[in-house]
Amino acid sequence: MCAARGPAAGAAGRTDAAPRPGQGRRPAALVRGEVLAAARELLLTDGMAAFTVERVARRSGASRMTIHKWWPSRGALALDAYVAVVDERLAFEDTGDIEADLTAHMRKFVRHLCGTSAGRVVAELIGCAQTDPHLAALFRERYSGPRRARMAAVLERARERGQLAAEIDSQALIDQLWGACYFRLLVADNPLTEGFAEVIVRNLLHGAGGHVTDPA
Amino acid sequence: MCAARGPAAGAAGRTDAAPRPGQGRRPAALVRGEVLAAARELLLTDGMAAFTVERVARRSGASRMTIHKWWPSRGALALDAYVAVVDERLAFEDTGDIEADLTAHMRKFVRHLCGTSAGRVVAELIGCAQTDPHLAALFRERYSGPRRARMAAVLERARERGQLAAEIDSQALIDQLWGACYFRLLVADNPLTEGFAEVIVRNLLHGAGGHVTDPA
Repeated sequence: MCAARGPAAGAAGRTDAAPRPGQGRRPAALVRGEVLAAARELLLTDGMAAFTVERVARRSGASRMTIHKWWPSRGALALDAYVAVVDERLAFEDTGDIEADLTAHMRKFVRHLCGTSAGRVVAELIGCAQTDPHLAALFRERYSGPRRARMAAVLERARERGQLAAEIDSQALIDQLWGACYFRLLVADNPLTEGFAEVIVRNLLHGAGGHVTDPA
Repeated sequence: MCAARGPAAGAAGRTDAAPRPGQGRRPAALVRGEVLAAARELLLTDGMAAFTVERVARRSGASRMTIHKWWPSRGALALDAYVAVVDERLAFEDTGDIEADLTAHMRKFVRHLCGTSAGRVVAELIGCAQTDPHLAALFRERYSGPRRARMAAVLERARERGQLAAEIDSQALIDQLWGACYFRLLVADNPLTEGFAEVIVRNLLHGAGGHVTDPA
């Protein structure tokens, strides 16, 4: 599942998209958008197993060379396509009530992972990243890192409102919410449901301790 | 990393270990133990990348055919070797104080994952399992399922002592402890440390909510 990487380095925009017969040179941003749209469609329809740069090239009309200029591997292209899907579907709301916002967000996250093929895709991306350090670094840099920062900002505002205890490390909270869901996705001992999403938020905000050890 | 599986089915003991030159037919349990010991040593020394049935055969003296009778794939053999390591290193203590026990256990778990090559091994096993449904099922059946049951029994006794709230779902607690650690292992946005292990137990037992939303 984890194809070898090509030699190119970054995924930043370039201006050298190859012209196609009968067309003038099209703007790079347009070509890039078409490639990502094609990648996203393929990824969500057929998953990582059938995802190749060749198929994205055929569907988008861009050349493989052009695609490889922007994305050094099929994993990098799949990752960017996945990020675009998530950013569209899973915005971070901040209504001023952290418990309601976290619950709504985690329920939406579970629906995204389980109600569509996105869960299979991200599980395979994380799976491939275990033996592909380049993909692992890209995953952190382009996906989990930026989304973590946005979630942490929401938690920080909740702390300022007094809805989180002052000493709480928001990064650990994120691991105990997202990590719990990813664990059910990746290992699947138990089903990943919206009810589970509600329970993990409640556990984390109110605590699972009983009357004997809970100092509250 | 995820090699094809052979045709054999189970990993249960057999009595048909091939005799070696100069030796009589040795008991199957003895041969099986030697194979597992060799597998474990290879796995912890060189990780999954260099782990092959061929190398385990050379090191243990058992034939590849014998090994394949018990383990249908290199993944299945690596998994059983890993389970043996974990069962030896990570027993579930129950001293009667759930917070102290969970904290000690999670610190030990983090040391196991980060202080030895075991973390890399289990990350690669989970990674492979994302595209190998047979390995995924074995992982649940032989590793995560039985260990979850033992952890749940410890949590159940804590609930009976009043150290966990009566309505708490112990499976979700396990996901919020183990899952948080696996998430840091697999995605590694932030370091997996013993301090993190302490924090996630405290968050979960006492709650992260502040004075405004926390009803306690």
